[in-house]
Amino acid sequence: MNSFGRILRLTTFGESHGVAIGGVLDGYPSGIEIDEAYVRSEMQRRRPGQSAVTTSRNESDEVEFLSGIFEGRSTGTPIAFIIRNTNNRSADYGNLSEVFRPSHADYVYEQKYGIRDYRGGGRSSARETAVRVCAGALAKLALRQLGITVQAYTSQVGDIAIENNYSAHNLNLVESNVVRCPDPVAAAAMEQLILDVKRSGDTVGGIVSCVAKGVPIGLGEPLYDKLSARLAQAMLSINAAKGFEYGNGFASVVGRGSQQNDIFIKGEGGITTRTNNSGGIQGGISNGQDIYFRVAFKPVATVLMEQSTVNKTGEEVTVAARGRHDPCVVPRAVPVVEAMTALTLLDFYLLSQSTGTL
Amino acid sequence: MNSFGRILRLTTFGESHGVAIGGVLDGYPSGIEIDEAYVRSEMQRRRPGQSAVTTSRNESDEVEFLSGIFEGRSTGTPIAFIIRNTNNRSADYGNLSEVFRPSHADYVYEQKYGIRDYRGGGRSSARETAVRVCAGALAKLALRQLGITVQAYTSQVGDIAIENNYSAHNLNLVESNVVRCPDPVAAAAMEQLILDVKRSGDTVGGIVSCVAKGVPIGLGEPLYDKLSARLAQAMLSINAAKGFEYGNGFASVVGRGSQQNDIFIKGEGGITTRTNNSGGIQGGISNGQDIYFRVAFKPVATVLMEQSTVNKTGEEVTVAARGRHDPCVVPRAVPVVEAMTALTLLDFYLLSQSTGTL
Amino acid sequence: MNSFGRILRLTTFGESHGVAIGGVLDGYPSGIEIDEAYVRSEMQRRRPGQSAVTTSRNESDEVEFLSGIFEGRSTGTPIAFIIRNTNNRSADYGNLSEVFRPSHADYVYEQKYGIRDYRGGGRSSARETAVRVCAGALAKLALRQLGITVQAYTSQVGDIAIENNYSAHNLNLVESNVVRCPDPVAAAAMEQLILDVKRSGDTVGGIVSCVAKGVPIGLGEPLYDKLSARLAQAMLSINAAKGFEYGNGFASVVGRGSQQNDIFIKGEGGITTRTNNSGGIQGGISNGQDIYFRVAFKPVATVLMEQSTVNKTGEEVTVAARGRHDPCVVPRAVPVVEAMTALTLLDFYLLSQSTGTL
Amino acid sequence: MNSFGRILRLTTFGESHGVAIGGVLDGYPSGIEIDEAYVRSEMQRRRPGQSAVTTSRNESDEVEFLSGIFEGRSTGTPIAFIIRNTNNRSADYGNLSEVFRPSHADYVYEQKYGIRDYRGGGRSSARETAVRVCAGALAKLALRQLGITVQAYTSQVGDIAIENNYSAHNLNLVESNVVRCPDPVAAAAMEQLILDVKRSGDTVGGIVSCVAKGVPIGLGEPLYDKLSARLAQAMLSINAAKGFEYGNGFASVVGRGSQQNDIFIKGEGGITTRTNNSGGIQGGISNGQDIYFRVAFKPVATVLMEQSTVNKTGEEVTVAARGRHDPCVVPRAVPVVEAMTALTLLDFYLLSQSTGTL
Repeated sequence: MNSFGRILRLTTFGESHGVAIGGVLDGYPSGIEIDEAYVRSEMQRRRPGQSAVTTSRNESDEVEFLSGIFEGRSTGTPIAFIIRNTNNRSADYGNLSEVFRPSHADYVYEQKYGIRDYRGGGRSSARETAVRVCAGALAKLALRQLGITVQAYTSQVGDIAIENNYSAHNLNLVESNVVRCPDPVAAAAMEQLILDVKRSGDTVGGIVSCVAKGVPIGLGEPLYDKLSARLAQAMLSINAAKGFEYGNGFASVVGRGSQQNDIFIKGEGGITTRTNNSGGIQGGISNGQDIYFRVAFKPVATVLMEQSTVNKTGEEVTVAARGRHDPCVVPRAVPVVEAMTALTLLDFYLLSQSTGTL
Repeated sequence: MNSFGRILRLTTFGESHGVAIGGVLDGYPSGIEIDEAYVRSEMQRRRPGQSAVTTSRNESDEVEFLSGIFEGRSTGTPIAFIIRNTNNRSADYGNLSEVFRPSHADYVYEQKYGIRDYRGGGRSSARETAVRVCAGALAKLALRQLGITVQAYTSQVGDIAIENNYSAHNLNLVESNVVRCPDPVAAAAMEQLILDVKRSGDTVGGIVSCVAKGVPIGLGEPLYDKLSARLAQAMLSINAAKGFEYGNGFASVVGRGSQQNDIFIKGEGGITTRTNNSGGIQGGISNGQDIYFRVAFKPVATVLMEQSTVNKTGEEVTVAARGRHDPCVVPRAVPVVEAMTALTLLDFYLLSQSTGTL
Repeated sequence: MNSFGRILRLTTFGESHGVAIGGVLDGYPSGIEIDEAYVRSEMQRRRPGQSAVTTSRNESDEVEFLSGIFEGRSTGTPIAFIIRNTNNRSADYGNLSEVFRPSHADYVYEQKYGIRDYRGGGRSSARETAVRVCAGALAKLALRQLGITVQAYTSQVGDIAIENNYSAHNLNLVESNVVRCPDPVAAAAMEQLILDVKRSGDTVGGIVSCVAKGVPIGLGEPLYDKLSARLAQAMLSINAAKGFEYGNGFASVVGRGSQQNDIFIKGEGGITTRTNNSGGIQGGISNGQDIYFRVAFKPVATVLMEQSTVNKTGEEVTVAARGRHDPCVVPRAVPVVEAMTALTLLDFYLLSQSTGTL
Repeated sequence: MNSFGRILRLTTFGESHGVAIGGVLDGYPSGIEIDEAYVRSEMQRRRPGQSAVTTSRNESDEVEFLSGIFEGRSTGTPIAFIIRNTNNRSADYGNLSEVFRPSHADYVYEQKYGIRDYRGGGRSSARETAVRVCAGALAKLALRQLGITVQAYTSQVGDIAIENNYSAHNLNLVESNVVRCPDPVAAAAMEQLILDVKRSGDTVGGIVSCVAKGVPIGLGEPLYDKLSARLAQAMLSINAAKGFEYGNGFASVVGRGSQQNDIFIKGEGGITTRTNNSGGIQGGISNGQDIYFRVAFKPVATVLMEQSTVNKTGEEVTVAARGRHDPCVVPRAVPVVEAMTALTLLDFYLLSQSTGTL
């Protein structure tokens, strides 16, 4: 239940204010050079406290690798790693032991398990995504050898949206601003919006777009393990995600088949398509074109204003968050979306070695 | 790869023009009365040739049960069933052995497997969804005993859309028209649009909405098997699906957390929420409220006009469909969406018996 | 629960006296020529009624392939097949609806499922092994292309045993007698023993030995999916199996490490071992040497004599089998052991393509 | 590949001389009181250096729990734990980087992964079983609430064997001697044998027997997940295991069905059986009687004498172990067998809640 993937399999553990969070990445190829500096740099992209638009919880998010690496290279055995929780302020959450925060997982965990670690949201905290980013960094190191790249970016915050087509943007600019939007003008507006919302104690949602390039033909399995279906699962497994679309997505419904079909043509490197409304996936299988998709994130449920709710005994009470929280998850969700994409693609790449011709 | 679910596990097989399609439903509870008339009625809802807005391929879609049922009740052993293909017109597809239809799976199957059954799309044909509907009907019979209902409907065809909120509609009217839209006025317009598109040899997309009622608290598993994540996978596994959103979905990004949070209140039957922007799922786990979501379907790739493409030797050629095809998948996708929802919910219900307290 | 394997995945269904038994073989490589005559010949080896030492139930065991094969070759999509039950004599079992036969699955099925198809043992009947043999024949066709062969034989019936070391025998003689023992003298004695036991209405057990040659280095996964561990599961999943050992097995406990270690030496084709006490598996992974193991089968529980038992209401009654049964399963278990071995080896071969170096 | 179980799922990691070994136990029921003293006492039973008949490597095997426990009770989220490696003497293994020890996993790991952590056997070391014992202790805590007990013991060392029938022994005496044999006289002889073998630099094998009491009816799933098949896999996954048999096992082959069938009778608590040759499992499903089985362990491959072998370049060389090793694994394998049994039983117990009647 806490595992993801079929050949490359990430199992994660840990609560927001427990001893540590961590993961075990099984099925990772042997012989890959593990560039720990790169892993750290990826962790920095997700780290809390990185800018004024994120939570001020200050975690160094130091990764300790416990196994699966020998003399700097992966051995093919499970790579386990842990990240100790250091900057807990559990006292901020003491009042939550008896209260269910609106639109949080508090209530359903209590009902399902009869017990919950209420400190910082426990297992349901977005802190767990640090583990995904670490594992995703390892996946990216392997994908790099296959010539596959994954790049996500913020394409909408609140009602500020940029042009949908990723090729209209210079994706090298994504890391040039704190919201991770490749359009500097929009980025500034998004940043201002988040700061305004933060000041009012409120939160706002947004959209993360992602594009993978260099994906070979043949990743994805009919029927239920379509690459698109597994990407959807991967994205919806991220905290606060509410929607997924790939290729021309929801917008495709208003057009006509004759307009939207991607015509096959002879390209320089072989068969290619004139357009890519399919988003690089046809019949659930990658067709060699760029894979792109979008993920909607709701406004974080934790707001600093007082809200009405009920407690464990069913009485109506009020609650206001005291912990340190993100006014908008999207800037920090960018590396998480990339990580889940990388894990999914590497898993399907490995699986594709076992399927098809002998 | 051709299996879906964890405890309740559907494995399917079959090509569009092969001997038969079918499935094996493993993990189905024992002792359930198998109402074959009900299964047939569900099959009728998906059957081709049911109206002028669907393909004229005329399959009776007679289900033969082979196992797992004894004296009218399920035994807990796998329920296997087959549907023979009878109204094949493979000659319509002879010209496709060497040609890749645009935006179809022809090309990726050829590349992945080095061989493909090109007749009617083979394994990638939407004919396979008949198997899902049959298995889904069985799932619904079990869900009925648990007081859980699943209802989908057409909420958009091309640019004709109805009010998003399902409670604004009388869902008893869904089966009253051929497009399966609960709004009779919109339904008539949608029907006309589909007929117009069909006449021009073209196709159009649409959106299917779905609501599940009576789902108990606690279905869904953190983190990667969130109920929302598995529903997303289930929906994106359906042919022509391009997007998924649950609760207030993509629209949620423009609001504020303070507006969208679902406030807990004391209801008559216990704790409930004032609003349901969460779509009945919080932290990936059902919270007892209605679960609702929407699935976008692109226009079918098979158009009757001539289109440019390439053949197996890489030469540019033209192709035009001759088979019988749906101008819009949405009316027939409604029971498929319900089926995948029912399979997912029953699977998670069963799984929930094994998780949580001892 | 009714599936076996990880990449190559067999899902089976069917009851002894139901409409049909069958299976779905998913993950089978594409492009393999499906030699149906070979499949039939393998089915003949397991078929009931093949000799005086087997049950007289006369099933033709005709296999109908439903999918996954196109123009004589596998397509990479699931291969489904069914075998209709024709020679049922359910009347023989009418008296069993209320009675639990000793050492049969009747009682536990009744307790677990609250309902059971008592006719011929229903799902728990060894008739299901026909499905394994069919799937195993397909696996062997793929293994043949990899240079891997699997050969099982009867090495013991009751107290008549042949020399343990398989290389002491001419395995080409296995099919030369009805008990499938490579030693003709022992075979005659075994046959006589089975006939004597049969005449007395009783049953007798035996041991099947199996050897796989040509298995490449590297099949098997640490730790819980050791090749040896999965072979043990595969063998113990066969009806009436009570034990498994590989290499020098139980006998190894009395020796010393210094005597039993397999010394590595330089062979013609590379590194090899002087002895093979390891049975071709070290640390759970194939080392390129012959893989061999033994499986113990108990005497069939169905005896024709009257036996005391209880019925559903808990009263003590007597029961005597009337159906047609094998006095000894071993001769017909030989192809079943081969089938499960072939399925396991092909599964691990395919999996090995996804693991190790990128 | 490094995971075990279906609902209760143990994923393990770590190399013998790496930073740490550890595991993640997912699917563990919530609300169980985690008695850490009990876990420690179980770890002591497997700990190296506990007596003269075991290796003198001195590991404290201190378990650090990282997650899944809150205020002393399990929360239903994954329980992660690590055991740091402290008493490494990797220098003992420096000479092994280029050499393949006979009957070890060195050679196959090198071939499969192209790289291996040769220090102390790396991942293939029996040190990993410490993780199993820790997870098994947690499983036993849950089984205790269900009234299920698991007890293993040494029943043979070299050629010194005790009476096969477990009910002939006082299992309370198992922990009264260092070899963990319930027969004090045989225990003394076994101890002497191990010491003699150790003095000669050699190793010896043995058999561990195990009995589980209080197992409810209905654990185990037809067909491939028979309880017996999964126990076989579990046992063969343990280092040095070469064989498995349950009930009357290999000995059953010489008897007759009429003698060995377990006659159902009316017992005080309901239906029971007069004998228990089935070993508590019929048709792969527990029948409420005691479950018992035996596991054969070969002599450890690590001997202190010089042995011939080859190195990575294929040259013949000699090797002699310098590390600290067990002359006989059996005494320390006893808690490992129990642990794997407990994990298997709890997994099947949980799974049984999801299968059968709704």
